[in-house]
Amino acid sequence: MTETDRTEFDLIDRIVARLGDVAASDILVPSGDDAAVWASDGPTVATIDALVEGTHWRADTMSLADVGWRAIAASASDIAAMGATPRYALVAATLTPSMDSEAVDGLIDGLAASCRQHDVEIAGGDIVRGNEAAVTVTMLGVASVEDGAARLLRRDDARTGDAIAVSGHPGASGAGLALIDASRGDEAAAKPLTDAHRRPIGRVALGLAATAAGLGCAIDISDGLLQDLGHIARKSDVGLEVDLDALPLHAAAVELLGREGSLDLALGGGEDFELAIVGNGDVLAALSTSDLPVTAIGRVVEAHRGEAWAVTGAGNRYEPPSAGWDQLRSGGSS
Amino acid sequence: MTETDRTEFDLIDRIVARLGDVAASDILVPSGDDAAVWASDGPTVATIDALVEGTHWRADTMSLADVGWRAIAASASDIAAMGATPRYALVAATLTPSMDSEAVDGLIDGLAASCRQHDVEIAGGDIVRGNEAAVTVTMLGVASVEDGAARLLRRDDARTGDAIAVSGHPGASGAGLALIDASRGDEAAAKPLTDAHRRPIGRVALGLAATAAGLGCAIDISDGLLQDLGHIARKSDVGLEVDLDALPLHAAAVELLGREGSLDLALGGGEDFELAIVGNGDVLAALSTSDLPVTAIGRVVEAHRGEAWAVTGAGNRYEPPSAGWDQLRSGGSS
Repeated sequence: MTETDRTEFDLIDRIVARLGDVAASDILVPSGDDAAVWASDGPTVATIDALVEGTHWRADTMSLADVGWRAIAASASDIAAMGATPRYALVAATLTPSMDSEAVDGLIDGLAASCRQHDVEIAGGDIVRGNEAAVTVTMLGVASVEDGAARLLRRDDARTGDAIAVSGHPGASGAGLALIDASRGDEAAAKPLTDAHRRPIGRVALGLAATAAGLGCAIDISDGLLQDLGHIARKSDVGLEVDLDALPLHAAAVELLGREGSLDLALGGGEDFELAIVGNGDVLAALSTSDLPVTAIGRVVEAHRGEAWAVTGAGNRYEPPSAGWDQLRSGGSS
Repeated sequence: MTETDRTEFDLIDRIVARLGDVAASDILVPSGDDAAVWASDGPTVATIDALVEGTHWRADTMSLADVGWRAIAASASDIAAMGATPRYALVAATLTPSMDSEAVDGLIDGLAASCRQHDVEIAGGDIVRGNEAAVTVTMLGVASVEDGAARLLRRDDARTGDAIAVSGHPGASGAGLALIDASRGDEAAAKPLTDAHRRPIGRVALGLAATAAGLGCAIDISDGLLQDLGHIARKSDVGLEVDLDALPLHAAAVELLGREGSLDLALGGGEDFELAIVGNGDVLAALSTSDLPVTAIGRVVEAHRGEAWAVTGAGNRYEPPSAGWDQLRSGGSS
């Protein structure tokens, strides 16, 4: 029996049961009415992200469990990049005729595991039928308030003289995908990189620590470090410079793909759910922990306003071959 | 030039400009950061709904403008059915290679027009590429509060002796679709029915009036009147009876499709974004206006708990050929 033989309501009951503790039950009105209702205890932070098979993942690079995991992580990362706490997810999934019960269970289990990792509950959903698998997540979070104002990490708060730091190891996800594509994903040394691609973690604690430290500017680098820093440059009307030599490349990426390839992936590979944070250098340095390094990679300048540049040790601009991930341009979908 | 030739960011800028006043700009952080942020002034009411081409609409029955309109209306209807006020929509749209600029503009214009109709702003979105067109809407609303408790219309608050009322003319949407399918959609008499199918309106004012009148139980009947009343029957552990002779059929549906066909569409046609409300009969009657009739159609009983029945004038159960809209079972997608 395929999933499309079940009725919508039986399937939803089964999914809610499988979600277990991740299905929000202690809110004012849980799933099962026309809408979910919960008490609001601060400014609402909201984001929506759609993942479509062929565009955002391929069946040969990610399992449906990985897709479910990443869908939640990607949305939690957007909330983290605002310095807020993710709380509730609403999930719409398009099931295809070829998905059997095992496949659907995998998707649900991946969603649930990622919700546990990110301390998020699923407050509602929609299961629909189609011919192209897709998962759309809306994540709702809450911002903290100080002196009557929401404490947030925005894109428009970078100032000349600020330092730029990045969490983790940019390029790790792209390196993982490159190795999977080269049939090298099963090599032992590739594991941390393929994990970064398939099981990314949104940096919620780091975003909260940044707002608590009084910082006000960050972005997640899921579209590629240089492209996403470009958003900060434009919104803040400043120039940003990233020192190539300072990039915290993943050792496994350098070992398996070389330094140059790893650099390009760090600048433009995309799908790294790390945070780039801009502000006082000492305050940024204090955010680094043994679990998650936060590394100074550059500075905010008066020059080339509206643009983020990578620069070599000799001070020259370096333009990587790919300027970032633009899925409307990518050829992955056909 | 097709839409997929544009970059994601150019396209998003163009869409935001085209949305005009519907793009939320007066919130704490509007679209253009990692997430949108707004102040919360009451319990949050949230719902997500996905519409997929082939499953929820066909290119020969609805334009993309109609699809955009309905996506917002359907979600506003869910918020209305909670007795809450819809405020902000987050919209994810999957664009296909065959969609040209005109098609995308149509979708955006339909979304924007429906947002104006329902007094909703778009706070965020995601534009992705795929091979199957889809629109997913998350609608966030706010519930009113009285004596510290949220005033809501729930599915589990029907009691024996209550009356059942329904707004508008159930079956109108199904009649519109039937006429479109029979190539009769352009007949003058069909217009109110095809409008009901393509340009439905969520009953927000009615939901609010119901909570203000102290009522506490309602559902929207978008899956079909009898099926949706079944949810109230199960959640409230009561029986529901709908008098066939009381159903407020649309005069045009009776004229064009006959009384029997119209009755079956009223009971199970689906995609009517009307409210079924349960409570005191006199209070329900007072909700009726010249713009939107609210008609008593039945009662809550002790018998057949967990089930909603249609009954004839002679008191016999009537089972319509289709028990409601279950899109996971429907054959429309292949």
